[in-house]
Amino acid sequence: MTEFFNVLAPDDARELLLRHITPLTDSETVATADALGRVTAVVTYAPQPLPTFRRSTMDGYAVRAGDTFGASTSLPAFLDVTGEVPMGRAADIILDKGQAALVHTGGMIPETADAVVQVELTQIIGAGIVNPPYEIEVFKAVAPGENVLQIGEDVALEEEMLPAGHILRPQDLGGLLALGITEIAVMRPPRVAILATGDEVISPDRDTGPGQIRDINSYTTAGQVTAAGGRPLTLGIVPDDLQALRDAAHKAMAEADMLVMSAGSSVSFRDMTAQVIAELGEPGVLFHGVATRPGKPTIGGVANGKPVIGLPGNPVSAMVQFDMLGRPAVHRLLGLAQPAMRGLVWATLTSNVASASGREDYVPARLEKTAEGYQATPVFGKSNLIYTLVNADGLMKIPLNKGGLLAGELVEVRLF
Amino acid sequence: MTEFFNVLAPDDARELLLRHITPLTDSETVATADALGRVTAVVTYAPQPLPTFRRSTMDGYAVRAGDTFGASTSLPAFLDVTGEVPMGRAADIILDKGQAALVHTGGMIPETADAVVQVELTQIIGAGIVNPPYEIEVFKAVAPGENVLQIGEDVALEEEMLPAGHILRPQDLGGLLALGITEIAVMRPPRVAILATGDEVISPDRDTGPGQIRDINSYTTAGQVTAAGGRPLTLGIVPDDLQALRDAAHKAMAEADMLVMSAGSSVSFRDMTAQVIAELGEPGVLFHGVATRPGKPTIGGVANGKPVIGLPGNPVSAMVQFDMLGRPAVHRLLGLAQPAMRGLVWATLTSNVASASGREDYVPARLEKTAEGYQATPVFGKSNLIYTLVNADGLMKIPLNKGGLLAGELVEVRLF
Repeated sequence: MTEFFNVLAPDDARELLLRHITPLTDSETVATADALGRVTAVVTYAPQPLPTFRRSTMDGYAVRAGDTFGASTSLPAFLDVTGEVPMGRAADIILDKGQAALVHTGGMIPETADAVVQVELTQIIGAGIVNPPYEIEVFKAVAPGENVLQIGEDVALEEEMLPAGHILRPQDLGGLLALGITEIAVMRPPRVAILATGDEVISPDRDTGPGQIRDINSYTTAGQVTAAGGRPLTLGIVPDDLQALRDAAHKAMAEADMLVMSAGSSVSFRDMTAQVIAELGEPGVLFHGVATRPGKPTIGGVANGKPVIGLPGNPVSAMVQFDMLGRPAVHRLLGLAQPAMRGLVWATLTSNVASASGREDYVPARLEKTAEGYQATPVFGKSNLIYTLVNADGLMKIPLNKGGLLAGELVEVRLF
Repeated sequence: MTEFFNVLAPDDARELLLRHITPLTDSETVATADALGRVTAVVTYAPQPLPTFRRSTMDGYAVRAGDTFGASTSLPAFLDVTGEVPMGRAADIILDKGQAALVHTGGMIPETADAVVQVELTQIIGAGIVNPPYEIEVFKAVAPGENVLQIGEDVALEEEMLPAGHILRPQDLGGLLALGITEIAVMRPPRVAILATGDEVISPDRDTGPGQIRDINSYTTAGQVTAAGGRPLTLGIVPDDLQALRDAAHKAMAEADMLVMSAGSSVSFRDMTAQVIAELGEPGVLFHGVATRPGKPTIGGVANGKPVIGLPGNPVSAMVQFDMLGRPAVHRLLGLAQPAMRGLVWATLTSNVASASGREDYVPARLEKTAEGYQATPVFGKSNLIYTLVNADGLMKIPLNKGGLLAGELVEVRLF
């Protein structure tokens, strides 16, 4: 299978993979209040404007702005306050010239008013008077529209509120519910089947014998799938046997939208994984190696629109590569309109880090907040050591054409 | 209640609030595989070293390093390969001087070997020979320990693996399971009661009449609570009535670990909220205003160790203030060992943003990725407009003592 051995630059590998993936088309309707983190399946247009009535942004008096023109501390305008607009009710007071109505923040403005004077710029004439009717002095002019939220100022009727392929955040839920949209069509989470392979790999609930290790990758990958918005299906451990892997992979693909195999790292296991991917469907293997460290022996393919990724067995390599390739693949299945934003922190590097040009390196780093900002300390260790990631807060990227990083340099750390 | 009106700088307000909160002490035991995002309740020490046996990091030959000393392409060392170590089994081959054993990546190293020569630096003598025994030429010397993972190199026996108060990430689950830790004690998620107040506020499933608006804050806050690791209890809408708010707040505090009230923004409602907080327990109201925009009229208090926050009614103010005060309060209840890292993006500002000195401003910003990096465009709008947040990717912070930001400046955007 060595004819497949083409190593791509990481960006090229990702683009090639994403281009062949067919986004899911099935959506489900859920309560908006429960839709945090889900991805919108359709564009939402505003069924009504927001706000639906003109609202005051201040505690004060609804006025006809013209009545306040020229008002100042030395020469106030005098207005008759004829009543109060209660919260949550229609403002049915009709203002004649020289009249005003007491309004609260968020209250409705009478139809005949066009501005609000904030209460701090007025004074009631007459000691001890609390409830209208009373007369006030206004010490500052207001322009028409001042301190008033106009109808549709937040969202206009029929305006596109949310695009399809958008990850719903708390404010999106609030925005939808403000318009009475209590249910929303969201994408079904992609089912991501996860297979671990290796004669030496056993389930975490078993005791290890000589030469045996417990399965790590099924669980780190499952966590990453969940965080990316997919639903992990951990299907267990397959021995190093072509037919067993083939059977397990075909079964997984029948029920899942994506398959991640964490393969042994040796050449023969890689070839086996590549062969199985090639047999699963068209176009099969797209690349057989990525110019990164860790994770060079990663295999990427697509079978009939479904992504299939063969991750290296080393847990650090597997996590880094899932982040680089698997996460965007899940997002493509979900139909995300744009790549999800990543949390980054810029930090000052505390020690030199070597790299080789022509390779993109990801080095686990621990962050510390100091008075001068963040400091990043590389966590060195072989890519078999899961605790290099446990002890790190994120990954530093050393770009493809850079020979390394120097202590004191400002580096970008991608948060986990 | 105006004697309570003390406005604090945001950092001071947060510190004062956090200092009075009593972290929860109750934990629960969950399956490690299901513990993503949960917070550890105890320190975990390694019950065994990792790895438990010496493993090869390469496909190649386990050797006695001394047998390869001086080997080079022109003067190779000759070794007898007596057998193969199968994956997942004990390496019971005994190597005499001049002997080697075929090993795979991750395989066990025989006790008598101390290094591995990678297969690419060797050649089998004799055409067509595949299975040991055979003789090899070794073209490069290896040092003792080379290409071998030592016992405990990942984690040593009894080493502290994870501290208490740590948010579990995918790699942490993998690290625990690698050691056979299939269950873990995690903190019970804090129950955060959420009350909306206001005569004008109605449930999102109802049609709005004149002057009425649908409840937004209960749902944006609930989403933020969930994202912070808490469990929201949305308790509905309370009318603008002191006794009704008092009753609802007492009932909420009986079943919750924290209370968030989204109060009306007018002075009288704020005073009502402050009065109720003062009555809930000691020390009561800690601050009555924060020097930020939006969100100045935020009230913070603690009642018998439980945080109580009175958020402004404006949805943008409420979200920003929950982020500044509510999220750290949830984290304090969870006993987080250190403040949770925030996702930040540095971006070039596309237009000027004004601010007032002595106030910390948070301006919603939309991010766009360009070839030169991210660009941040402020989303202007009154703090009553939820869609300023829907249309934004994060918040730009304008520090307390800065009069504003200029187009072209590099700004820090906190991702939502």
